[in-house]
Amino acid sequence: MSQTRIIDGKATAKEIRNEIAEKVARRREKGLKVPHLAAVLVGTDGGSETYVSYKVKDCKEVGYESTLIRKSDSISEKELLDLVAELNENKEIDGFIVQLPLPKHIDTQKVIMAIDPNKDVDGFHPENVGRMTLGLPGFLSATPAGIIELLKRNDINPSGKHCVVLGRSNIVGSPLSILLSRNVPTGNATVTLCHSRTQNLKEIALQADILISALGKPGFVTPDMVKPGAVVIDVGTTRVKDASKKSGYSLKGDVLFDEVSKIASAITPVPGGVGPMTRVALLLNTLKAVELV
Amino acid sequence: MSQTRIIDGKATAKEIRNEIAEKVARRREKGLKVPHLAAVLVGTDGGSETYVSYKVKDCKEVGYESTLIRKSDSISEKELLDLVAELNENKEIDGFIVQLPLPKHIDTQKVIMAIDPNKDVDGFHPENVGRMTLGLPGFLSATPAGIIELLKRNDINPSGKHCVVLGRSNIVGSPLSILLSRNVPTGNATVTLCHSRTQNLKEIALQADILISALGKPGFVTPDMVKPGAVVIDVGTTRVKDASKKSGYSLKGDVLFDEVSKIASAITPVPGGVGPMTRVALLLNTLKAVELV
Repeated sequence: MSQTRIIDGKATAKEIRNEIAEKVARRREKGLKVPHLAAVLVGTDGGSETYVSYKVKDCKEVGYESTLIRKSDSISEKELLDLVAELNENKEIDGFIVQLPLPKHIDTQKVIMAIDPNKDVDGFHPENVGRMTLGLPGFLSATPAGIIELLKRNDINPSGKHCVVLGRSNIVGSPLSILLSRNVPTGNATVTLCHSRTQNLKEIALQADILISALGKPGFVTPDMVKPGAVVIDVGTTRVKDASKKSGYSLKGDVLFDEVSKIASAITPVPGGVGPMTRVALLLNTLKAVELV
Repeated sequence: MSQTRIIDGKATAKEIRNEIAEKVARRREKGLKVPHLAAVLVGTDGGSETYVSYKVKDCKEVGYESTLIRKSDSISEKELLDLVAELNENKEIDGFIVQLPLPKHIDTQKVIMAIDPNKDVDGFHPENVGRMTLGLPGFLSATPAGIIELLKRNDINPSGKHCVVLGRSNIVGSPLSILLSRNVPTGNATVTLCHSRTQNLKEIALQADILISALGKPGFVTPDMVKPGAVVIDVGTTRVKDASKKSGYSLKGDVLFDEVSKIASAITPVPGGVGPMTRVALLLNTLKAVELV
């Protein structure tokens, strides 16, 4: 049996960051504006702190400017909306994100709707989601965009393949199913979107040439669900307690990696697969934002 | 073998129009605004003339006000955009449509983008498409919305069923696949979206509990593609020359009706299936528009 390929998202993301850094250097040389990302962090949630710190670090690495705006979790909805309006107007800032989740007293959807779609580098505004659905230019949300890029850079062409996506979330499964079926070189797959109500999930998963799991259920995808030779993309990143780690936890994917990797032709690990690509997708959106100006 | 049910879209649409007419009458009694739809018709394309005349007729039947704005096909893009801006501002008009296709010298996407999403009763603006994708309230485009309503009113519950959609157009197949897989009472299906690049289309179609064809290819769906007992929804309406008809043509669906109806448990005819539901969906959107005010 041929060797299973481990799809190295970390290496692919690194390659993309290098390309971005070169583009930024060239912009700097030409006297063009350097991309500037702002991130709004409300409160002190541990996960959010980590994610935002990665985003700032990534910006630094590729030569972007970045601004981290911290607000106490007692900020009112009105104050946050005012801040968003200010960032919409601020010509220095090319794109910005409001890190989710927000405190319960704030209407998240209202905040998202207030962001100028042209600065919405998270791609969460309905106008950007609609643009994606219609195949128009716009900002794609980071995880699905990162997966599409990961496939492309690793010469996995979904065209004509049967892709089965497990999980219909608004930020991963659902947009990914749309992107994979679009009539574009990185799409053209036949896509089946499965979820909690799917009755014969195993049977459908077994048909997949490319199986993508975005459920957030550690170990959900077992070898008996995978067609020999399939490509398996694991989007799950669930924090599981792990006393052996300094942080006290480790990240677990949806896929039973050791067993499934014996059957798949290619597979993404967790961590080091989709995660780094999600991070780099935000950088790509921010570059697109400055190019819009 | 049990009798195949012919899903009567004409009767279902009639039932809905009666309900709308009652609601409008009640609004009138209460002194509330009566829905007012405007339709912009550019040029004299035969198909467009027919569609717009149906829309005006439908409005009349349910007691809506309607305004038909005719423009010569020499209208400039700027003039059309000005008209759209005027309709956006006009408080008398609750919703409006710009009948497509537009003359080649006009950028259709630009015109669609100019329509206020709150008056976009065709549901073509990216913000409305994004709202649909995200499961937020907004205007759904007419054909997919009509099909969802047709299933609901005929007690066909897609939940947990495998729906196979043939055709990925922006106005039918793609949004329908999204609506059917959403986590709502009229959704929850496992959906496979097939198209011209799908390799094993027959094999996938045969898995469908609900098979929906939106290809515009007369006679494409043959009995060997249909699982016994499946529900078959035919969205195709291709004009085919027919000397026996006064109009000189007849409408042909994608499904080989006589043969497939022997296998399906339920099937929509063409004409009289999805078509009338598409028309009534515009009325439902217009009612929603006036209720937004």
